[in-house]
Amino acid sequence: MNDNVYVVGHKNPDTDSICAAICLSKLKEVQGETNVLPARTNETNSETDFVLEKFDLEKPQVLEDASDKKIILVDHNEYSQAVEGAEEAEIVEVLDHHRIGDVETSGPIPFHVEPVGSTSTLIYERFKEQGIEPSESVKGALFSAILSDTVIFRSPTTTERDEKAGEELAADLGLDPVKYGKEMFKVKSNIDEKSAREAVVGDFKEYDIGEHKIGVNQIETVTPETAMSRKDEFLEAMEQVREERGYTFMINLVTDLLEENSKALFVGDEKESFEQAFDVKLEDNEAFLEGVLSRKKQVIPNLESVLG
Amino acid sequence: MNDNVYVVGHKNPDTDSICAAICLSKLKEVQGETNVLPARTNETNSETDFVLEKFDLEKPQVLEDASDKKIILVDHNEYSQAVEGAEEAEIVEVLDHHRIGDVETSGPIPFHVEPVGSTSTLIYERFKEQGIEPSESVKGALFSAILSDTVIFRSPTTTERDEKAGEELAADLGLDPVKYGKEMFKVKSNIDEKSAREAVVGDFKEYDIGEHKIGVNQIETVTPETAMSRKDEFLEAMEQVREERGYTFMINLVTDLLEENSKALFVGDEKESFEQAFDVKLEDNEAFLEGVLSRKKQVIPNLESVLG
Repeated sequence: MNDNVYVVGHKNPDTDSICAAICLSKLKEVQGETNVLPARTNETNSETDFVLEKFDLEKPQVLEDASDKKIILVDHNEYSQAVEGAEEAEIVEVLDHHRIGDVETSGPIPFHVEPVGSTSTLIYERFKEQGIEPSESVKGALFSAILSDTVIFRSPTTTERDEKAGEELAADLGLDPVKYGKEMFKVKSNIDEKSAREAVVGDFKEYDIGEHKIGVNQIETVTPETAMSRKDEFLEAMEQVREERGYTFMINLVTDLLEENSKALFVGDEKESFEQAFDVKLEDNEAFLEGVLSRKKQVIPNLESVLG
Repeated sequence: MNDNVYVVGHKNPDTDSICAAICLSKLKEVQGETNVLPARTNETNSETDFVLEKFDLEKPQVLEDASDKKIILVDHNEYSQAVEGAEEAEIVEVLDHHRIGDVETSGPIPFHVEPVGSTSTLIYERFKEQGIEPSESVKGALFSAILSDTVIFRSPTTTERDEKAGEELAADLGLDPVKYGKEMFKVKSNIDEKSAREAVVGDFKEYDIGEHKIGVNQIETVTPETAMSRKDEFLEAMEQVREERGYTFMINLVTDLLEENSKALFVGDEKESFEQAFDVKLEDNEAFLEGVLSRKKQVIPNLESVLG
């Protein structure tokens, strides 16, 4: 009999989703729950591969279908972002830092959401509360995930708790957050090697807003001009993704991590709603979004206020 | 400008809902959040009145309509059990020990559910984590609410955490859990003074299961024979409630706290589903439910497995 519990992040795994799955499993293992295993839904991105290699951690196994399995959701709590079969799975725990989604259960389970910048901050705090010292690998993974999700503490989602966790881990690991963070982001923003299709679904999330299903991709980079020079092929790939998946519209954010703003590429219907949501005009499917760094905290709430 | 935040329990306030609202507000007040106020949706029951009087606490104000207000939900996390207007309110925090319900938010909020016997256990733990010593009144309220919700640690929902919290509070307060608990329950089960209508909605909850809306009341008593001697007038009052509120069926549990089982009174449709759910036969609208003490942990899951 297989009584495993799989800790799994969202459908387009980023460093926080993968590291949270690994580190929460490690914590539970130390606490005697040896049947808890990290899992992932899809291919890891190049940034995450860099982190796992640097800190000598294995990639979690792929969970193709969670039907009839026990799962712990990390870094998300809504079905549209969850592993295939999640609605037929038994969700036994949730640990997240996003909006409260549509998960319902028949009995009480540990369900913890906190408005912080990274799921890994919550896992770091849990290690401390339990008085358990994380291994060097776990510390490295948590540190990387916090820097990744908070854009080296620059994202508006960043809280004092993320900074405290990040600084304590930096001191323990002897790493400089800015120097190490930039090294990590350079790997991530290395989209030159990717096809247009890979680039526009590389950090992708799907949302249900009002009657609309939409897709939002984000390319975080320190050299936005390189990404924008491929605008025409990106738009073509986006239109293809939009048609395949039946989105009302699809947005691709090219986010400049140093200047802290984004350019949005837009394909699909409800163009006017988009313009209204951000008080901008789209020209040649493109708009400049001043100060926008966070999909979750800035882009989605604006779209919800107009379409929701 | 009114920037108050109201801490509010479910629609049919019991001792845990009321005490959790009071004690979480007190904790936040000590932490400098002076705009957080306890509230209630409805009349308190006689057990709660006894507790508030004993520990010198004021009844929370009644919140008639939460529309456009900021609210913290305690002891529930679904709209069907929440204060009027909750869907138009801004839910800023949730602290609960029930199943995960249908609350969704546009941004992340602190949302904490743990599978323990009482919300007040979680509040006691939070005081301890923060290193804040509760006042004598707060200790008394938390202690009473834990004993009430766990039926003096006998309900199957009781966990080690509830016992630990209850025992620490008992020692601090110099009260014996069993002796004080029985005194408290005697007040609660004093249904002789109530009309049939009052008795069958005295500890009432509404659930949406599959396509059905149902109502479940519970009379917890140390003298079940007194309650059952009023069966005919209870059934009549239940049928009236069912018709008024459009329930598929309504159940009234008469729970024997000492023998640890219940008699269920049933009115309405889907009689066979009820019988299947508990593997019993209803005779004269009545069935014996061996070992059933908990509406949440025993009755609702069984009904969901058949109707959900």
